[in-house]
Amino acid sequence: MPASNRRVLLKSRPQGEPTSANFDVVDSPIPEPKDGEYLSRTIWMSLDPYMRGRMAEAKGYAANVNLGDPMVGGTVGQVVKSKNPNFKEGDFVVEQSGWQSYAVSKGVGVMKLDPDVAPLSTALSVLGMPGMTAWWGLMQIGKPKAGETVVVSAASGAVGSVVGQLAKLHGCRAVGIAGGKDKCDYVVKELGFDACVDYRAAGKDLFKELRVAAPRGIDVYFENVGGAVQAAVVAQLNDFARVPLCGLISQYNATDATPGPDWRLLLIKRATVTGFIVSDHFGQMDGFWKEVPAAVKAGKIKYREDIVKGIENAPEAFIGLLKGRNFGKLLVQVSDDPTRR
Amino acid sequence: MPASNRRVLLKSRPQGEPTSANFDVVDSPIPEPKDGEYLSRTIWMSLDPYMRGRMAEAKGYAANVNLGDPMVGGTVGQVVKSKNPNFKEGDFVVEQSGWQSYAVSKGVGVMKLDPDVAPLSTALSVLGMPGMTAWWGLMQIGKPKAGETVVVSAASGAVGSVVGQLAKLHGCRAVGIAGGKDKCDYVVKELGFDACVDYRAAGKDLFKELRVAAPRGIDVYFENVGGAVQAAVVAQLNDFARVPLCGLISQYNATDATPGPDWRLLLIKRATVTGFIVSDHFGQMDGFWKEVPAAVKAGKIKYREDIVKGIENAPEAFIGLLKGRNFGKLLVQVSDDPTRR
Repeated sequence: MPASNRRVLLKSRPQGEPTSANFDVVDSPIPEPKDGEYLSRTIWMSLDPYMRGRMAEAKGYAANVNLGDPMVGGTVGQVVKSKNPNFKEGDFVVEQSGWQSYAVSKGVGVMKLDPDVAPLSTALSVLGMPGMTAWWGLMQIGKPKAGETVVVSAASGAVGSVVGQLAKLHGCRAVGIAGGKDKCDYVVKELGFDACVDYRAAGKDLFKELRVAAPRGIDVYFENVGGAVQAAVVAQLNDFARVPLCGLISQYNATDATPGPDWRLLLIKRATVTGFIVSDHFGQMDGFWKEVPAAVKAGKIKYREDIVKGIENAPEAFIGLLKGRNFGKLLVQVSDDPTRR
Repeated sequence: MPASNRRVLLKSRPQGEPTSANFDVVDSPIPEPKDGEYLSRTIWMSLDPYMRGRMAEAKGYAANVNLGDPMVGGTVGQVVKSKNPNFKEGDFVVEQSGWQSYAVSKGVGVMKLDPDVAPLSTALSVLGMPGMTAWWGLMQIGKPKAGETVVVSAASGAVGSVVGQLAKLHGCRAVGIAGGKDKCDYVVKELGFDACVDYRAAGKDLFKELRVAAPRGIDVYFENVGGAVQAAVVAQLNDFARVPLCGLISQYNATDATPGPDWRLLLIKRATVTGFIVSDHFGQMDGFWKEVPAAVKAGKIKYREDIVKGIENAPEAFIGLLKGRNFGKLLVQVSDDPTRR
């Protein structure tokens, strides 16, 4: 066991793109659990686009990180010391320890993991927050009907990949949008989407290429990115289209507001746009638990991990995430995973 | 009975604001009903913002008017000659005769009116399409809960006035937005809204004045206008706000797209924007018929008519409607209403 708790603190708030100067990597003493607490060693740490919002001063939908505090985030850890009767040494837990290699917790909102059911890291991807995000947005807001066309942006990512595979399982045409040939090939050949548009290669032809990929128009658009992709998709919505609005990663670094589409497009198509955040709905996930774990186990929903080793590399990995440099669910392996040999 | 059928035809498509040069007023022979048809004399003709869309070449949500054809629109008429057993001379009907003083019809989709139940003209306003639009958008999309704040733009208009009064009946704070002191006074003093913001007088203080009028934020925004009003309202939506998107009158004359709000605002607030057009829902109006006619009869929902006489004055009245010059439901009295003495 290392002698210190390595932590990544928010040093300053980014103007536009975050840089490594916005973060401080510090080594602190490992905390001692008090009565009712346990100490866990972080194994896996999730990096997600929403964290960009937490770095900002501007009011977002969650408490922002204070300067000098560790960045927030979902983690999988193992209990190494416990003064809480519900958690014993060796237990695996999914928790919100943030960007640090050790954390104490009272166990509130913490779920234990059985490593025999699924790899520990999936609790941060397909069987965790991103998977639930995909399921809620697609099934509860998008409400796809068999035969309809579902388009999802950031299609090779942790959320998008599940959206498209779920759409296929429900009889829809699944069309991805992703940046780069490798990601598009993966989306179509590995994940079984019907088509994928490479928005980087398409450039000004994005609208046309999307028309080819979605020749009957777009019934559900699962929105992860915003910007030019949003404009191209919204112009091709069908009557009564549904748009689960999950994220706007291309806009997160913008210092000014990014204008959205003319609402005339929404009016003419009688479309519905619904912003959502999955944490509002963690108590309504029965349908997710019924459908997704079994589909993952059966190989009907595949996932891909993009693993960065060492918590000190989290800032750079996160900066890359906002530029689409990751390929699959971006995870930081903070320490050894004893179940993965 | 006059010797001719006065009609207003679409002569050319407007670029930007319509002008009188876009219309042709012509006198044609009065048509003869064939077997299965009746001839009606138009009494009341409705002028509504949606008609601007019908003048355009661009694809809207309904068949556009062909050049040389009469403008479309809802009308109340009286049968003057009939070869259809279901309609007899003297019957009052609400129909879609368009901008002409006589029309023949097979009676499909036509409803007979009993002038003892309500004034004939209300079939084009509070008990017709505008009233149904208000009810559907507010109750089925907005789903207001008692204690919430409902904001409606074009608040003194045929739709907006019903929205605010319905909101009050359901225990909400009703805030109008309208252009000019007279309209705002009417909305508050006559219709009983809690507050009304005069967007013309407010100018750059619109955001601030709206904050004063809706101090607890906005839960439902019934959108009729778009533009700067839209921007000010969307920035003040509460969490889980609903936005029934009914119209965008300030944008209808725009030749270019009008950018909408940054979707980040919708995401952070988990807001829902739903475009709708009432004709999709004419078959689902049980709730409207249960609630609105009785409320009108009891004086709990008031309405105001802005009446222009003579069909040849319809173009100018319509042009004024798009500029907000009307005050109340804009109607053209095409011929004598024998029930109104």
